Amino acid sequence: MSVSNHRQSYETLAANLLQKAGVVLRADESIELADFGLGEFDLTGLALVTYINTDRYCGKELVLLPRQTCPEHLHPPVETDPGKMETFRCRSGEVYLYVQGPASTKIRAVIPAGSDKHYTVYHQIVLTPGEQYTIAPGIRHWFQGGPDGAVVTEFSSTSRDELDIFTDPRIRRVPVK
Amino acid sequence: MSVSNHRQSYETLAANLLQKAGVVLRADESIELADFGLGEFDLTGLALVTYINTDRYCGKELVLLPRQTCPEHLHPPVETDPGKMETFRCRSGEVYLYVQGPASTKIRAVIPAGSDKHYTVYHQIVLTPGEQYTIAPGIRHWFQGGPDGAVVTEFSSTSRDELDIFTDPRIRRVPVK
Repeated sequence: MSVSNHRQSYETLAANLLQKAGVVLRADESIELADFGLGEFDLTGLALVTYINTDRYCGKELVLLPRQTCPEHLHPPVETDPGKMETFRCRSGEVYLYVQGPASTKIRAVIPAGSDKHYTVYHQIVLTPGEQYTIAPGIRHWFQGGPDGAVVTEFSSTSRDELDIFTDPRIRRVPVK
Repeated sequence: MSVSNHRQSYETLAANLLQKAGVVLRADESIELADFGLGEFDLTGLALVTYINTDRYCGKELVLLPRQTCPEHLHPPVETDPGKMETFRCRSGEVYLYVQGPASTKIRAVIPAGSDKHYTVYHQIVLTPGEQYTIAPGIRHWFQGGPDGAVVTEFSSTSRDELDIFTDPRIRRVPVK
């Protein structure tokens, strides 16, 4: 489903997941819905709230709807910056995270239909609440929410989403909103 | 009260505040109790959980017991680092934060008894859940939990607690634990 036709319901779903995770938003804060230009937000997308993004560090809340996938990408070096480094701290739900490395035999995620060839790394890390993982700069990765969705606090170096390199050439990383 | 005689009860109080804020800790994670060497943890102290601290960014959960104060300090420059910059995101409770700037007329915090002269900045920011504030490098600051305590997620540049400069010359910033 495209974001434009269902914005309000997606925002509500994400807001409910945040609330259930104990995350409080102010009335003046909005939830960004990223559909990566594929027009299938419920399958391939991510909701996020950026708390702070400076030239030194960044803090966000990431919300994955049930079985929603943030597609495979990496954060390239930029000038003296070796590329974004990020720590995912799972707050609620389950996250299936895949990074470069030996492929895991039992993959819990379900690849978005029709996009199989754009997923190439299968080293699985499963995060439940309280668990965390740090993704080194330049490492290709993707992640999916479990059956009940997930909320993840992201601690990272400076975020430059517009420079992310996606495996799927159809993707354009621009906020829909 | 000194931490050593009451470690377990302070840990339990902090753990309860985290739980009420929806923050999940793993069984293998421990809560650091910092009493700043003053031996009056319930008045002047801070409980914290450091999720990640790299040479690029840091992520922590800070817990303030009711009316507990993190004493006045600043983060000095270190080599090419201009000093720690930190963003406090209030998750639960109320935080009374004071930074350099025009003194506020109504101060909500109660200065720890006998330590008045070691508190010199009074520009007040009150944070309730969902509110946040970013403290620039080198800015003197201190903060206190409201009547029900508080939980704050800290997004920051690299943390080097041992280099912090405190206004109170009696303070030594070493973890008790």
